[in-house]
Amino acid sequence: MTTNAARPDATIAVLGGTGPQGSGLALRLARAGYQVVLGSRTAERAEVKAGELRAAGLTGVTGTTNPDACEAADVVVVAVPYDGHDELIATLAPHLTGKIVITCVNPMRFDKRGPVGLLAGNSSAAEAAAELLPHATVVGAFHHLSAVSLNDPDADLSGHTVMVASDDEDAADQVAELARAVTGNLGVCIGPLRLNRHLEPLTAVLISTNRRYRTHSGVALVGVPDGPPLRR
Amino acid sequence: MTTNAARPDATIAVLGGTGPQGSGLALRLARAGYQVVLGSRTAERAEVKAGELRAAGLTGVTGTTNPDACEAADVVVVAVPYDGHDELIATLAPHLTGKIVITCVNPMRFDKRGPVGLLAGNSSAAEAAAELLPHATVVGAFHHLSAVSLNDPDADLSGHTVMVASDDEDAADQVAELARAVTGNLGVCIGPLRLNRHLEPLTAVLISTNRRYRTHSGVALVGVPDGPPLRR
Repeated sequence: MTTNAARPDATIAVLGGTGPQGSGLALRLARAGYQVVLGSRTAERAEVKAGELRAAGLTGVTGTTNPDACEAADVVVVAVPYDGHDELIATLAPHLTGKIVITCVNPMRFDKRGPVGLLAGNSSAAEAAAELLPHATVVGAFHHLSAVSLNDPDADLSGHTVMVASDDEDAADQVAELARAVTGNLGVCIGPLRLNRHLEPLTAVLISTNRRYRTHSGVALVGVPDGPPLRR
Repeated sequence: MTTNAARPDATIAVLGGTGPQGSGLALRLARAGYQVVLGSRTAERAEVKAGELRAAGLTGVTGTTNPDACEAADVVVVAVPYDGHDELIATLAPHLTGKIVITCVNPMRFDKRGPVGLLAGNSSAAEAAAELLPHATVVGAFHHLSAVSLNDPDADLSGHTVMVASDDEDAADQVAELARAVTGNLGVCIGPLRLNRHLEPLTAVLISTNRRYRTHSGVALVGVPDGPPLRR
Protein backbone atom coordinates (compact mmCIF):
# COMPACT_ATOMS: atom_id res chain seq x y z
CA MET A 1 0.00 0.00 0.00
CA THR A 2 1.90 3.09 -1.20
CA THR A 3 -1.08 5.48 -1.25
CA ASN A 4 -1.92 7.31 1.96
CA ALA A 5 -5.58 8.16 1.82
CA ALA A 6 -5.36 10.50 4.79
CA ARG A 7 -2.27 12.38 3.53
CA PRO A 8 -3.10 16.09 3.81
CA ASP A 9 -2.30 16.71 0.15
CA ALA A 10 -4.05 13.59 -1.10
CA THR A 11 -6.35 14.01 -4.09
CA ILE A 12 -9.71 12.35 -3.55
CA ALA A 13 -12.09 11.55 -6.39
CA VAL A 14 -15.80 11.33 -5.61
CA LEU A 15 -17.68 9.33 -8.25
CA GLY A 16 -21.31 10.34 -8.30
CA GLY A 17 -20.00 13.66 -7.05
CA THR A 18 -22.99 15.55 -8.42
CA GLY A 19 -25.45 13.54 -6.30
CA PRO A 20 -26.46 14.53 -2.77
CA GLN A 21 -24.26 12.00 -0.93
CA GLY A 22 -21.26 12.57 -3.19
CA SER A 23 -21.43 16.36 -3.16
CA GLY A 24 -21.91 16.33 0.61
CA LEU A 25 -18.82 14.17 1.14
CA ALA A 26 -16.92 16.38 -1.33
CA LEU A 27 -17.95 19.47 0.64
CA ARG A 28 -16.68 18.02 3.90
CA LEU A 29 -13.45 16.67 2.40
CA ALA A 30 -12.67 19.91 0.56
CA ARG A 31 -13.38 21.93 3.67
CA ALA A 32 -10.81 19.77 5.49
CA GLY A 33 -8.23 20.80 2.88
CA TYR A 34 -8.22 17.84 0.51
CA GLN A 35 -8.04 18.28 -3.24
CA VAL A 36 -11.34 16.86 -4.49
CA VAL A 37 -12.20 15.84 -8.03
CA LEU A 38 -15.89 15.27 -8.66
CA GLY A 39 -16.59 12.55 -11.19
CA SER A 40 -19.76 12.26 -13.27
CA ARG A 41 -20.95 10.74 -16.52
CA THR A 42 -20.24 14.04 -18.25
CA ALA A 43 -17.43 16.46 -17.41
CA GLU A 44 -19.89 19.34 -17.82
CA ARG A 45 -22.24 18.23 -15.03
CA ALA A 46 -19.28 17.57 -12.72
CA GLU A 47 -17.71 20.96 -13.46
CA VAL A 48 -21.02 22.76 -12.81
CA LYS A 49 -21.27 21.17 -9.33
CA ALA A 50 -17.56 21.82 -8.68
CA GLY A 51 -18.14 25.48 -9.61
CA GLU A 52 -20.98 25.66 -7.07
CA LEU A 53 -18.69 24.32 -4.34
CA ARG A 54 -15.88 26.71 -5.33
CA ALA A 55 -18.39 29.58 -5.24
CA ALA A 56 -19.17 28.49 -1.67
CA GLY A 57 -15.49 29.01 -0.83
CA LEU A 58 -14.36 25.42 -1.26
CA THR A 59 -11.32 25.96 -3.43
CA GLY A 60 -9.54 22.91 -4.77
CA VAL A 61 -12.71 21.25 -6.05
CA THR A 62 -12.74 20.39 -9.74
CA GLY A 63 -14.99 18.21 -11.90
CA THR A 64 -14.47 15.83 -14.79
CA THR A 65 -15.57 12.45 -16.12
CA ASN A 66 -15.55 9.42 -13.82
CA PRO A 67 -12.52 7.80 -15.56
CA ASP A 68 -10.49 11.03 -15.50
CA ALA A 69 -11.42 11.59 -11.85
CA CYS A 70 -10.11 8.10 -11.00
CA GLU A 71 -6.84 8.76 -12.86
CA ALA A 72 -6.32 12.07 -11.04
CA ALA A 73 -6.88 10.65 -7.55
CA ASP A 74 -5.00 8.70 -4.90
CA VAL A 75 -8.27 7.65 -3.31
CA VAL A 76 -11.64 7.17 -4.99
CA VAL A 77 -14.98 7.43 -3.19
CA VAL A 78 -17.81 5.61 -4.97
CA ALA A 79 -21.05 7.45 -4.16
CA VAL A 80 -23.20 6.36 -7.10
CA PRO A 81 -26.70 4.86 -7.06
CA TYR A 82 -26.69 1.06 -6.87
CA ASP A 83 -28.55 0.85 -10.15
CA GLY A 84 -25.77 0.26 -12.70
CA HIS A 85 -23.12 0.06 -9.97
CA ASP A 86 -21.46 -3.19 -11.04
CA GLU A 87 -21.28 -2.12 -14.70
CA LEU A 88 -19.73 1.24 -13.77
CA ILE A 89 -17.13 -0.37 -11.51
CA ALA A 90 -16.20 -2.89 -14.20
CA THR A 91 -15.76 -0.06 -16.71
CA LEU A 92 -13.56 1.93 -14.34
CA ALA A 93 -11.38 -1.01 -13.26
CA PRO A 94 -8.45 -0.06 -15.53
CA HIS A 95 -8.39 3.40 -13.93
CA LEU A 96 -8.39 2.13 -10.32
CA THR A 97 -5.26 -0.03 -10.24
CA GLY A 98 -3.34 0.38 -6.98
CA LYS A 99 -5.86 2.81 -5.52
CA ILE A 100 -7.98 2.73 -2.40
CA VAL A 101 -11.64 2.58 -3.44
CA ILE A 102 -14.11 3.63 -0.74
CA THR A 103 -17.69 2.60 -1.36
CA CYS A 104 -20.70 4.09 0.45
CA VAL A 105 -23.23 2.53 -1.92
CA ASN A 106 -26.49 1.34 -0.30
CA PRO A 107 -28.45 -1.24 -2.30
CA MET A 108 -32.10 -0.68 -1.32
CA ARG A 109 -35.55 -0.94 -2.79
CA PHE A 110 -38.66 1.01 -1.86
CA ASP A 111 -42.28 -0.11 -1.86
CA LYS A 112 -45.47 1.00 -0.10
CA ARG A 113 -44.04 -0.32 3.21
CA GLY A 114 -40.93 1.82 2.87
CA PRO A 115 -37.25 1.08 2.23
CA VAL A 116 -35.59 -2.31 2.65
CA GLY A 117 -32.21 -3.81 1.77
CA LEU A 118 -32.07 -5.15 -1.77
CA LEU A 119 -29.37 -7.81 -1.66
CA ALA A 120 -29.24 -11.27 -0.16
CA GLY A 121 -27.57 -11.34 3.24
CA ASN A 122 -24.48 -13.02 1.85
CA SER A 123 -23.54 -10.23 -0.55
CA SER A 124 -22.92 -6.49 -0.67
CA ALA A 125 -22.07 -3.79 -3.19
CA ALA A 126 -18.63 -3.59 -1.58
CA GLU A 127 -17.92 -7.30 -2.03
CA ALA A 128 -19.11 -7.08 -5.64
CA ALA A 129 -16.75 -4.15 -6.21
CA ALA A 130 -13.86 -6.09 -4.68
CA GLU A 131 -14.55 -8.98 -7.07
CA LEU A 132 -14.50 -6.56 -10.01
CA LEU A 133 -11.36 -4.73 -8.79
CA PRO A 134 -8.66 -7.34 -8.09
CA HIS A 135 -5.96 -4.67 -8.43
CA ALA A 136 -7.53 -2.11 -6.08
CA THR A 137 -8.20 -2.08 -2.34
CA VAL A 138 -11.91 -1.78 -1.52
CA VAL A 139 -13.06 -0.26 1.76
CA GLY A 140 -16.66 0.18 2.90
CA ALA A 141 -17.36 3.44 4.79
CA PHE A 142 -19.56 6.57 4.98
CA HIS A 143 -22.86 4.69 4.44
CA HIS A 144 -24.84 6.26 7.25
CA LEU A 145 -24.20 10.00 7.07
CA SER A 146 -27.33 11.75 5.86
CA ALA A 147 -26.80 13.70 2.63
CA VAL A 148 -28.79 16.58 4.11
CA SER A 149 -26.43 16.83 7.07
CA LEU A 150 -23.32 16.40 4.91
CA ASN A 151 -24.45 19.27 2.69
CA ASP A 152 -25.28 21.55 5.63
CA PRO A 153 -21.99 23.28 6.49
CA ASP A 154 -23.38 24.02 9.97
CA ALA A 155 -24.44 20.43 10.72
CA ASP A 156 -22.30 18.91 13.49
CA LEU A 157 -21.48 15.30 12.64
CA SER A 158 -19.29 14.71 15.70
CA GLY A 159 -21.91 12.44 17.28
CA HIS A 160 -21.82 10.04 14.33
CA THR A 161 -19.58 6.99 13.88
CA VAL A 162 -18.11 6.09 10.50
CA MET A 163 -17.86 2.29 10.43
CA VAL A 164 -15.05 1.05 8.19
CA ALA A 165 -14.97 -2.48 6.73
CA SER A 166 -12.03 -3.85 4.75
CA ASP A 167 -9.88 -6.93 4.29
CA ASP A 168 -6.86 -4.59 4.18
CA GLU A 169 -6.11 -3.34 7.69
CA ASP A 170 -3.73 -0.61 6.47
CA ALA A 171 -6.32 0.79 4.05
CA ALA A 172 -9.00 0.59 6.76
CA ASP A 173 -6.79 2.60 9.12
CA GLN A 174 -6.26 5.25 6.44
CA VAL A 175 -9.99 5.54 5.75
CA ALA A 176 -10.71 5.67 9.49
CA GLU A 177 -8.32 8.63 9.64
CA LEU A 178 -9.99 10.17 6.59
CA ALA A 179 -13.29 9.98 8.49
CA ARG A 180 -11.91 12.65 10.83
CA ALA A 181 -12.14 15.12 7.96
CA VAL A 182 -15.86 14.38 7.64
CA THR A 183 -17.15 13.88 11.20
CA GLY A 184 -14.24 15.02 13.37
CA ASN A 185 -13.84 11.52 14.79
CA LEU A 186 -11.59 8.62 13.92
CA GLY A 187 -13.62 5.93 12.15
CA VAL A 188 -14.13 2.50 13.71
CA CYS A 189 -12.52 -0.43 11.87
CA ILE A 190 -15.23 -3.07 12.38
CA GLY A 191 -13.50 -5.90 10.54
CA PRO A 192 -13.54 -7.73 7.18
CA LEU A 193 -15.21 -6.38 4.05
CA ARG A 194 -17.92 -9.03 4.23
CA LEU A 195 -19.40 -7.17 7.22
CA ASN A 196 -20.33 -4.46 4.73
CA ARG A 197 -23.31 -6.67 3.88
CA HIS A 198 -24.66 -5.60 7.27
CA LEU A 199 -23.64 -1.92 7.02
CA GLU A 200 -25.25 -1.26 3.63
CA PRO A 201 -28.87 -2.22 4.47
CA LEU A 202 -28.73 -0.40 7.82
CA THR A 203 -29.31 2.70 5.71
CA ALA A 204 -32.84 1.39 5.02
CA VAL A 205 -33.45 1.43 8.79
CA LEU A 206 -32.25 5.04 8.98
CA ILE A 207 -34.42 6.17 6.04
CA SER A 208 -37.48 4.45 7.52
CA THR A 209 -36.75 6.13 10.87
CA ASN A 210 -36.28 9.49 9.14
CA ARG A 211 -39.71 9.26 7.52
CA ARG A 212 -41.40 8.30 10.76
CA TYR A 213 -39.72 10.88 13.02
CA ARG A 214 -39.27 13.56 10.34
CA THR A 215 -35.54 13.79 10.95
CA HIS A 216 -32.14 12.97 9.44
CA SER A 217 -30.82 10.22 11.66
CA GLY A 218 -27.41 8.63 11.84
CA VAL A 219 -25.58 5.93 13.74
CA ALA A 220 -23.09 5.94 16.58
CA LEU A 221 -21.25 3.01 18.09
CA VAL A 222 -21.30 3.28 21.89
CA GLY A 223 -18.43 2.12 24.09
CA VAL A 224 -15.65 1.94 21.48
CA PRO A 225 -12.41 3.51 22.76
CA ASP A 226 -10.83 6.21 20.61
CA GLY A 227 -7.83 5.01 18.64
CA PRO A 228 -7.01 2.08 16.35
CA PRO A 229 -8.10 -1.52 17.05
CA LEU A 230 -6.12 -3.21 19.83
CA ARG A 231 -6.27 -6.54 18.02
CA ARG A 232 -6.65 -7.42 14.33
CA MET B 1 -54.31 -5.40 21.55
CA THR B 2 -55.56 -5.90 25.11
CA THR B 3 -52.15 -6.57 26.68
CA ASN B 4 -50.12 -3.58 27.78
CA ALA B 5 -46.49 -4.64 27.72
CA ALA B 6 -45.35 -1.56 29.61
CA ARG B 7 -48.03 -1.78 32.32
CA PRO B 8 -46.17 -1.47 35.66
CA ASP B 9 -47.66 -4.70 36.95
CA ALA B 10 -47.18 -6.62 33.71
CA THR B 11 -45.65 -10.08 33.98
CA ILE B 12 -42.84 -10.61 31.50
CA ALA B 13 -41.54 -14.04 30.55
CA VAL B 14 -37.95 -14.32 29.34
CA LEU B 15 -37.39 -17.51 27.34
CA GLY B 16 -33.75 -18.49 27.45
CA GLY B 17 -33.77 -16.67 30.76
CA THR B 18 -30.81 -18.69 32.04
CA GLY B 19 -28.56 -17.47 29.22
CA PRO B 20 -26.46 -14.27 29.42
CA GLN B 21 -28.76 -12.10 27.26
CA GLY B 22 -31.95 -13.41 28.87
CA SER B 23 -30.75 -13.13 32.44
CA GLY B 24 -29.39 -9.66 31.77
CA LEU B 25 -32.72 -8.46 30.38
CA ALA B 26 -34.49 -10.16 33.31
CA LEU B 27 -32.21 -8.34 35.75
CA ARG B 28 -33.00 -4.96 34.20
CA LEU B 29 -36.74 -5.61 33.91
CA ALA B 30 -37.03 -6.94 37.47
CA ARG B 31 -35.06 -3.99 38.79
CA ALA B 32 -37.60 -1.71 37.09
CA GLY B 33 -40.35 -3.43 39.06
CA TYR B 34 -41.75 -5.91 36.59
CA GLN B 35 -42.71 -9.43 37.56
CA VAL B 36 -40.33 -11.63 35.57
CA VAL B 37 -40.69 -15.34 34.89
CA LEU B 38 -37.55 -16.99 33.53
CA GLY B 39 -38.27 -19.79 31.09
CA SER B 40 -35.90 -22.67 30.37
CA ARG B 41 -35.99 -26.25 29.07
CA THR B 42 -36.19 -27.45 32.66
CA ALA B 43 -37.95 -25.71 35.54
CA GLU B 44 -34.99 -26.57 37.77
CA ARG B 45 -32.42 -24.61 35.74
CA ALA B 46 -34.78 -21.65 35.50
CA GLU B 47 -35.49 -21.66 39.22
CA VAL B 48 -31.77 -21.83 40.07
CA LYS B 49 -31.13 -18.68 37.99
CA ALA B 50 -34.23 -17.00 39.42
CA GLY B 51 -32.94 -17.78 42.91
CA GLU B 52 -29.62 -16.11 42.05
CA LEU B 53 -31.45 -12.96 40.93
CA ARG B 54 -33.67 -12.98 44.04
CA ALA B 55 -30.54 -13.37 46.19
CA ALA B 56 -29.22 -10.23 44.45
CA GLY B 57 -32.30 -8.39 45.70
CA LEU B 58 -34.43 -8.74 42.59
CA THR B 59 -37.65 -9.96 44.15
CA GLY B 60 -40.45 -10.99 41.85
CA VAL B 61 -38.25 -13.20 39.67
CA THR B 62 -39.36 -16.79 39.35
CA GLY B 63 -38.40 -19.63 37.05
CA THR B 64 -40.23 -22.43 35.28
CA THR B 65 -40.44 -24.25 31.95
CA ASN B 66 -40.73 -22.25 28.72
CA PRO B 67 -44.41 -23.20 28.14
CA ASP B 68 -45.42 -22.37 31.73
CA ALA B 69 -43.50 -19.09 31.53
CA CYS B 70 -45.45 -18.18 28.38
CA GLU B 71 -48.76 -19.01 30.06
CA ALA B 72 -47.91 -16.87 33.10
CA ALA B 73 -46.92 -13.79 31.13
CA ASP B 74 -48.53 -10.86 29.34
CA VAL B 75 -45.39 -10.31 27.29
CA VAL B 76 -42.81 -12.89 26.25
CA VAL B 77 -39.19 -12.06 25.45
CA VAL B 78 -37.48 -14.67 23.27
CA ALA B 79 -33.76 -14.65 24.14
CA VAL B 80 -32.78 -18.13 22.99
CA PRO B 81 -29.92 -19.16 20.69
CA TYR B 82 -30.90 -19.25 17.02
CA ASP B 83 -30.03 -22.93 16.83
CA GLY B 84 -33.41 -24.64 17.29
CA HIS B 85 -35.26 -21.31 17.35
CA ASP B 86 -37.96 -22.12 14.81
CA GLU B 87 -38.73 -25.50 16.38
CA LEU B 88 -39.04 -23.94 19.85
CA ILE B 89 -41.34 -21.19 18.62
CA ALA B 90 -43.55 -23.70 16.81
CA THR B 91 -43.80 -25.78 19.99
CA LEU B 92 -44.73 -22.77 22.08
CA ALA B 93 -47.27 -21.34 19.63
CA PRO B 94 -50.32 -22.64 21.58
CA HIS B 95 -49.04 -20.83 24.70
CA LEU B 96 -48.49 -17.48 22.95
CA THR B 97 -51.97 -16.70 21.63
CA GLY B 98 -52.85 -13.03 22.01
CA LYS B 99 -49.49 -12.13 23.54
CA ILE B 100 -46.78 -9.72 22.51
CA VAL B 101 -43.67 -11.73 21.62
CA ILE B 102 -40.43 -9.73 21.67
CA THR B 103 -37.52 -11.38 19.90
CA CYS B 104 -33.87 -10.36 20.34
CA VAL B 105 -32.51 -13.45 18.57
CA ASN B 106 -29.42 -12.87 16.40
CA PRO B 107 -28.76 -15.52 13.72
CA MET B 108 -24.99 -15.52 13.25
CA ARG B 109 -22.22 -17.89 12.35
CA PHE B 110 -18.55 -17.70 13.32
CA ASP B 111 -15.49 -18.76 11.36
CA LYS B 112 -11.79 -17.83 11.41
CA ARG B 113 -12.67 -14.39 10.02
CA GLY B 114 -15.06 -13.69 12.89
CA PRO B 115 -18.84 -13.38 13.17
CA VAL B 116 -21.20 -12.77 10.26
CA GLY B 117 -24.97 -12.80 9.77
CA LEU B 118 -26.34 -16.26 9.02
CA LEU B 119 -29.55 -15.61 7.11
CA ALA B 120 -30.25 -14.39 3.60
CA GLY B 121 -30.97 -10.68 3.50
CA ASN B 122 -34.64 -11.27 2.82
CA SER B 123 -35.36 -13.12 6.04
CA SER B 124 -34.96 -12.81 9.80
CA ALA B 125 -35.62 -14.80 12.94
CA ALA B 126 -38.37 -12.30 13.74
CA GLU B 127 -40.16 -12.81 10.43
CA ALA B 128 -39.88 -16.58 10.85
CA ALA B 129 -41.42 -16.27 14.33
CA ALA B 130 -44.27 -14.15 12.96
CA GLU B 131 -44.98 -16.85 10.35
CA LEU B 132 -45.10 -19.48 13.11
CA LEU B 133 -47.21 -17.31 15.45
CA PRO B 134 -50.26 -16.09 13.49
CA HIS B 135 -52.14 -15.51 16.77
CA ALA B 136 -49.40 -13.49 18.50
CA THR B 137 -47.86 -10.07 17.84
CA VAL B 138 -44.14 -10.28 17.11
CA VAL B 139 -41.85 -7.35 17.82
CA GLY B 140 -38.09 -7.20 17.23
CA ALA B 141 -36.10 -5.35 19.91
CA PHE B 142 -33.14 -5.53 22.35
CA HIS B 143 -30.73 -7.08 19.82
CA HIS B 144 -27.76 -4.82 20.45
CA LEU B 145 -27.39 -4.54 24.21
CA SER B 146 -24.28 -6.43 25.32
CA ALA B 147 -25.04 -9.24 27.77
CA VAL B 148 -22.04 -8.15 29.84
CA SER B 149 -23.46 -4.66 30.24
CA LEU B 150 -27.00 -5.92 30.89
CA ASN B 151 -25.71 -8.15 33.68
CA ASP B 152 -23.59 -5.39 35.25
CA PRO B 153 -25.98 -3.53 37.59
CA ASP B 154 -23.64 -0.52 37.47
CA ALA B 155 -23.44 -0.35 33.66
CA ASP B 156 -25.15 2.78 32.33
CA LEU B 157 -27.11 1.93 29.18
CA SER B 158 -28.56 5.41 28.72
CA GLY B 159 -26.36 6.06 25.69
CA HIS B 160 -27.81 3.08 23.82
CA THR B 161 -30.83 3.03 21.50
CA VAL B 162 -33.27 0.13 21.47
CA MET B 163 -34.56 -0.15 17.89
CA VAL B 164 -38.06 -1.62 17.70
CA ALA B 165 -39.45 -3.25 14.54
CA SER B 166 -43.04 -4.45 14.21
CA ASP B 167 -45.99 -4.53 11.84
CA ASP B 168 -48.22 -3.64 14.83
CA GLU B 169 -47.71 0.03 15.72
CA ASP B 170 -49.45 -0.30 19.08
CA ALA B 171 -47.27 -3.23 20.14
CA ALA B 172 -44.18 -1.37 18.91
CA ASP B 173 -45.11 1.64 21.05
CA GLN B 174 -45.53 -0.60 24.10
CA VAL B 175 -42.15 -2.26 23.57
CA ALA B 176 -40.52 1.14 22.98
CA GLU B 177 -41.90 2.15 26.40
CA LEU B 178 -40.67 -1.13 27.90
CA ALA B 179 -37.19 -0.20 26.65
CA ARG B 180 -37.18 2.61 29.22
CA ALA B 181 -36.99 -0.04 31.94
CA VAL B 182 -33.81 -1.41 30.37
CA THR B 183 -31.88 1.62 29.07
CA GLY B 184 -33.73 4.58 30.58
CA ASN B 185 -34.73 5.80 27.11
CA LEU B 186 -37.83 5.36 24.99
CA GLY B 187 -37.08 2.92 22.16
CA VAL B 188 -37.18 4.04 18.52
CA CYS B 189 -39.92 2.50 16.36
CA ILE B 190 -37.99 2.05 13.12
CA GLY B 191 -40.81 0.54 11.06
CA PRO B 192 -42.11 -2.81 9.77
CA LEU B 193 -40.95 -6.17 11.11
CA ARG B 194 -39.10 -6.93 7.88
CA LEU B 195 -36.50 -4.34 8.88
CA ASN B 196 -35.50 -6.77 11.61
CA ARG B 197 -33.53 -8.58 8.89
CA HIS B 198 -31.15 -5.61 9.11
CA LEU B 199 -31.16 -5.30 12.92
CA GLU B 200 -30.31 -8.95 13.65
CA PRO B 201 -27.00 -9.18 11.72
CA LEU B 202 -25.82 -5.81 13.03
CA THR B 203 -24.94 -7.76 16.16
CA ALA B 204 -22.19 -9.48 14.14
CA VAL B 205 -20.69 -6.02 13.49
CA LEU B 206 -20.77 -5.27 17.23
CA ILE B 207 -19.16 -8.58 18.20
CA SER B 208 -16.43 -8.12 15.60
CA THR B 209 -15.82 -4.58 16.91
CA ASN B 210 -15.77 -5.87 20.49
CA ARG B 211 -13.04 -8.37 19.65
CA ARG B 212 -10.91 -5.79 17.86
CA TYR B 213 -11.25 -2.98 20.43
CA ARG B 214 -11.57 -5.24 23.50
CA THR B 215 -14.84 -3.62 24.53
CA HIS B 216 -18.59 -4.21 24.80
CA SER B 217 -20.04 -1.92 22.18
CA GLY B 218 -23.60 -0.92 21.45
CA VAL B 219 -25.59 1.20 19.03
CA ALA B 220 -27.21 4.60 19.26
CA LEU B 221 -29.35 6.34 16.68
CA VAL B 222 -28.30 9.99 16.39
CA GLY B 223 -30.75 12.79 15.67
CA VAL B 224 -34.02 11.04 16.53
CA PRO B 225 -36.30 13.26 18.63
CA ASP B 226 -37.56 11.82 21.92
CA GLY B 227 -41.17 10.66 21.78
CA PRO B 228 -43.27 8.49 19.49
CA PRO B 229 -43.07 8.60 15.67
CA LEU B 230 -44.69 11.69 14.14
CA ARG B 231 -45.89 9.68 11.15
CA ARG B 232 -46.66 5.99 10.71
